[in-house]
Amino acid sequence: MVVRVAINGYGTIGKRVADAVAKQPDMKVVGVAKTRPSFEARAAIDRGFPLFVGGDGRMADFGAASLPVAGTVAEMLEIADIVVDATPDKRGRENAGLYDAAKVPVVFQGGERSDLVEVSFNALGNYAAAKGKRRVRVVSCNTTGLARAAAVLTRKFGVDQWEATVVRRAADPSDTARGPINGILPTFKLPSHHGVDVKSIFPDLAITTTAVVVPTTLMHVHVNHVRLTRAPRDSKELLEAFRTTHRFHVFEDWERVEGTPQIMEFARDRGSPRGDMMENVVWEHGVKSEGNDAYFFQGNHQESIVVPENIDAIRAMLELAPDGAASMAITDKTLGIGRG
Amino acid sequence: MVVRVAINGYGTIGKRVADAVAKQPDMKVVGVAKTRPSFEARAAIDRGFPLFVGGDGRMADFGAASLPVAGTVAEMLEIADIVVDATPDKRGRENAGLYDAAKVPVVFQGGERSDLVEVSFNALGNYAAAKGKRRVRVVSCNTTGLARAAAVLTRKFGVDQWEATVVRRAADPSDTARGPINGILPTFKLPSHHGVDVKSIFPDLAITTTAVVVPTTLMHVHVNHVRLTRAPRDSKELLEAFRTTHRFHVFEDWERVEGTPQIMEFARDRGSPRGDMMENVVWEHGVKSEGNDAYFFQGNHQESIVVPENIDAIRAMLELAPDGAASMAITDKTLGIGRG
Amino acid sequence: MVVRVAINGYGTIGKRVADAVAKQPDMKVVGVAKTRPSFEARAAIDRGFPLFVGGDGRMADFGAASLPVAGTVAEMLEIADIVVDATPDKRGRENAGLYDAAKVPVVFQGGERSDLVEVSFNALGNYAAAKGKRRVRVVSCNTTGLARAAAVLTRKFGVDQWEATVVRRAADPSDTARGPINGILPTFKLPSHHGVDVKSIFPDLAITTTAVVVPTTLMHVHVNHVRLTRAPRDSKELLEAFRTTHRFHVFEDWERVEGTPQIMEFARDRGSPRGDMMENVVWEHGVKSEGNDAYFFQGNHQESIVVPENIDAIRAMLELAPDGAASMAITDKTLGIGRG
Amino acid sequence: MVVRVAINGYGTIGKRVADAVAKQPDMKVVGVAKTRPSFEARAAIDRGFPLFVGGDGRMADFGAASLPVAGTVAEMLEIADIVVDATPDKRGRENAGLYDAAKVPVVFQGGERSDLVEVSFNALGNYAAAKGKRRVRVVSCNTTGLARAAAVLTRKFGVDQWEATVVRRAADPSDTARGPINGILPTFKLPSHHGVDVKSIFPDLAITTTAVVVPTTLMHVHVNHVRLTRAPRDSKELLEAFRTTHRFHVFEDWERVEGTPQIMEFARDRGSPRGDMMENVVWEHGVKSEGNDAYFFQGNHQESIVVPENIDAIRAMLELAPDGAASMAITDKTLGIGRG
Repeated sequence: MVVRVAINGYGTIGKRVADAVAKQPDMKVVGVAKTRPSFEARAAIDRGFPLFVGGDGRMADFGAASLPVAGTVAEMLEIADIVVDATPDKRGRENAGLYDAAKVPVVFQGGERSDLVEVSFNALGNYAAAKGKRRVRVVSCNTTGLARAAAVLTRKFGVDQWEATVVRRAADPSDTARGPINGILPTFKLPSHHGVDVKSIFPDLAITTTAVVVPTTLMHVHVNHVRLTRAPRDSKELLEAFRTTHRFHVFEDWERVEGTPQIMEFARDRGSPRGDMMENVVWEHGVKSEGNDAYFFQGNHQESIVVPENIDAIRAMLELAPDGAASMAITDKTLGIGRG
Repeated sequence: MVVRVAINGYGTIGKRVADAVAKQPDMKVVGVAKTRPSFEARAAIDRGFPLFVGGDGRMADFGAASLPVAGTVAEMLEIADIVVDATPDKRGRENAGLYDAAKVPVVFQGGERSDLVEVSFNALGNYAAAKGKRRVRVVSCNTTGLARAAAVLTRKFGVDQWEATVVRRAADPSDTARGPINGILPTFKLPSHHGVDVKSIFPDLAITTTAVVVPTTLMHVHVNHVRLTRAPRDSKELLEAFRTTHRFHVFEDWERVEGTPQIMEFARDRGSPRGDMMENVVWEHGVKSEGNDAYFFQGNHQESIVVPENIDAIRAMLELAPDGAASMAITDKTLGIGRG
Repeated sequence: MVVRVAINGYGTIGKRVADAVAKQPDMKVVGVAKTRPSFEARAAIDRGFPLFVGGDGRMADFGAASLPVAGTVAEMLEIADIVVDATPDKRGRENAGLYDAAKVPVVFQGGERSDLVEVSFNALGNYAAAKGKRRVRVVSCNTTGLARAAAVLTRKFGVDQWEATVVRRAADPSDTARGPINGILPTFKLPSHHGVDVKSIFPDLAITTTAVVVPTTLMHVHVNHVRLTRAPRDSKELLEAFRTTHRFHVFEDWERVEGTPQIMEFARDRGSPRGDMMENVVWEHGVKSEGNDAYFFQGNHQESIVVPENIDAIRAMLELAPDGAASMAITDKTLGIGRG
Repeated sequence: MVVRVAINGYGTIGKRVADAVAKQPDMKVVGVAKTRPSFEARAAIDRGFPLFVGGDGRMADFGAASLPVAGTVAEMLEIADIVVDATPDKRGRENAGLYDAAKVPVVFQGGERSDLVEVSFNALGNYAAAKGKRRVRVVSCNTTGLARAAAVLTRKFGVDQWEATVVRRAADPSDTARGPINGILPTFKLPSHHGVDVKSIFPDLAITTTAVVVPTTLMHVHVNHVRLTRAPRDSKELLEAFRTTHRFHVFEDWERVEGTPQIMEFARDRGSPRGDMMENVVWEHGVKSEGNDAYFFQGNHQESIVVPENIDAIRAMLELAPDGAASMAITDKTLGIGRG
């Protein structure tokens, strides 16, 4: 069985999810929806994705740009078994009625609130919880990164207390309207919402987060200090816990990866489509244990980190795989990431 | 016949030239040389390129990183028909003796001075001049971009006078040591060397250039005002002159490409390896003619724009193709760029 | 006689004009207007400027912040001999009726169009034209910088043709909402409006301008190539022409001022209030003549360069000084800038 | 008694310390030393500070720039009662012999290691410990900021555990050679040295710090989570603890200070020389208590925050004031900062 997936919203996340769906043996893209013509809309057509007009978009605008359009979002939903909503933050809630009317289950993104859905999802964290559900939310990029690390730490060591500072990139690379150009902006919600959001997946996790916005476009970085229940033997054991887990990438010291720019360079060198880095990134010399205290930095590529989770969410909801491990194995192999 | 190409220097340019060579039907990579282990060195091995130790590098360092090494640069040269020198600026001159000793013809990059070589090269500009030569220099990224535009304008309209301001990116994306972070640095050589360098290919061109450095990593932008000998009928004719030429990419207004960040996004969407943009980029609303005056902006991806020129230089020097058009046709088709 | 000056709009320009007015022997500040409470509003009060509520602002908001308010803009105008409109771009046109109703002459800023006023003004360029006028516009920062240079070059050498590329800072230092963070955005109006705007002061000047936006907050830089009617003897003569003119600052080579960041550092070291640089800035090694061709870079501090022009505009309109030289002498002395 | 202060090194810190010394009733500047001519050297002369040639500098270079020089550092030391070493990091250790030979007590900066000195100093933290000492180190900007906060929290609430992430600006505004332009660089020392350094002043403080470098020039930001011994009644009590302490500046919500750029704008509006902000900066909505947990952001102006500490260090070492409170009162009043 090949399930028919529609993607509503073809921006940073939507276009990546479409590509990822197209690579799955058990899924195909039946359409992507965009509101306005642009080079991105043309790229969708060049990739062979049927293009539908979404939101308040107008057919005539696409006609003027000689971009063939297959119909409206409502029409796209008629031919879909499931829809991924990758529209801008908060827009998903407005679209929910449309999906209900079409009786199509939906994967929302982290820009929606958790009360919109039955389950907030992370593949390593709670795959099983999404089985058979009709409204699931893949948590945001930062929450996804923290949830993956939580899956590792809670299972292998136990977590007594976790402090994380989320150092956020201010804008995506092609989002030229947003600043700041020079300066740091604290996120004045204290603690920040990220920790709360991780608890939508790990309800008992003792995590506290804070955040600042900094003038870069490449990646977020999480600065973590965790009090573990069981002390790792040494930093090496901690590092190995990450290295042997799905969706973590470890850089060795000799690779000379100084920060987020070199991670992005690695992804380009590796041949990752769009230069994406869908794994959590940790550094050999950026992981340290001292007794029960563990410190680690992790890099988080906001443009792509949630893409494999969207694929797994589809598989969980439609029960296309027996469990998370089986789903992740397919996802990671097709996307060229992860272990093995 | 498949010529054996060695690449000395495996940084921003070297690694791209290696990939491009590997895609040519008439060439193969016999080795790449790097001085120190890093994630980039490992990527070379992952791509199947034999890795040699260059410059002042030490075998032991590579051994410590478990990176298998095939030998020294001298040994690499023994199995090569031609070498591309992609070592840092001015280092090529130091290496010249090595290449002479090995009796291997060499393609240098734009960081070397023109007096080091027999011919300064641009495929659209002077392909034939490099035929059978043993020391050729592919001019720098900015000069390459200007030379391509010069090829179009001199042939289709004639150029009476050309003023260009080169707005330079301050560092490559992964070059995290260089600034400025916030500020503009004029290039105090007046006029700048770029115009002089273009004349190494178009000796009679009346071009004057100036330059500033700005805090971005993505691309250079050239701001051009040209007095043409023959007035284009309208801006459209001028635009078409670019559109119908090898190695130019035109963005239409409706594509909403506001600047260099969206160009890079387009390249990622298109599936270009490493997100490269090897073409000169012009915009429909960034090309304008008023009588004999022509104005145009062009984007210039410093990391990759010289890559196809390196391929064509090899072909010209070893006389692998009858003429430039034939070489460029192969190069562009294999690299997925250009017309047709 | 001390004329009573009101300033409507207390942002980047307004607050600087207020400070400058307060330093003039023949002027005083009777009020500044702001729409919303902020640290800037409090600074106005701390400086002793009566604070009025402008635009769509509400008294209650200021009350909640314990900021004493003196009244509305209409009330401020009642006690003013002249008003400086420093509200956001295009807002001045909306305010014009208010000023007319109050029968108060007004100095607009460069964000307004030239058809709103009787005279577009630059002190070095056309001081006399503003005498006795009731609606005058101080041209924008970039136009002011170009007009000052035009005053020097047209008078001392004559200008046959001038090409300028305006490299624009993307946002002011405290404007944290605006990008781009990483990238260059061409200004697709070709040629750009700056040249046209300079002609509102020098109608016969043969100037053509282009512009790009770059990710910095500090200063604009103009890259100029001018064909002069009379050839300077050498670069030195050209440099001296700038050095001996009001409102130019020359940096010598030995001062090691590499770009805009060091200019700003100089201004701070000099003790300029807010670290402002109200002069056009040229560099010894950034000014060059070759026959009739002149090349020069000039730095342009967008936050403050129009401030002295606002003062001179007031003096011209109210005929407080016999001529421009006399007005500029007072302005420059009180503001601590320029020659002498 | 007016003590004669020499300042060796006239860069970011040295020039500010010189200005601050000049404002003290009990101190005067007898000389500043710089290695090379530059606009900053000229500014020293313009301010009336005798200029000496430091480090490997040459008299001839200053002569060529027409900058009058008063002698060598050794000669400067002969007329000084105390010297402030503001040379680049690690250079102070090299200079120590010179100061010993001249029998002049010295204030080093935070770029030197603590084992070079008798006391690591912070005015709020351990003023008394520096009394009569001959080698004292004013800790670095980040450590100074943390130490001030530690003085408040340890005394008013007690600290059980403190986690701080130091988000560091990558370069000073005029340091145009340093990057990164776009990216985040983790500081791979885990935990970072800042916590260790704070303990040179508060030996028993349970503080752990981590750090990242981000592409901005303006200020550092500290993200703090502190477990207090005594729970504050509410966030207000915590905020008041900062507000009522020397060298803290509190921004209210209504002031709309979103981040470091607006802090710098505030400092310029306030009329602070060079736009400096010598206080720790906290925000009303950036300080929060929840039971014994306290969260707060603090801004830290790396260029100036240590300046008042240098003044107090001089006063402590030469016993010019009875205690820290008395010294700080004079320092803060003369520098226009702090409470009262």
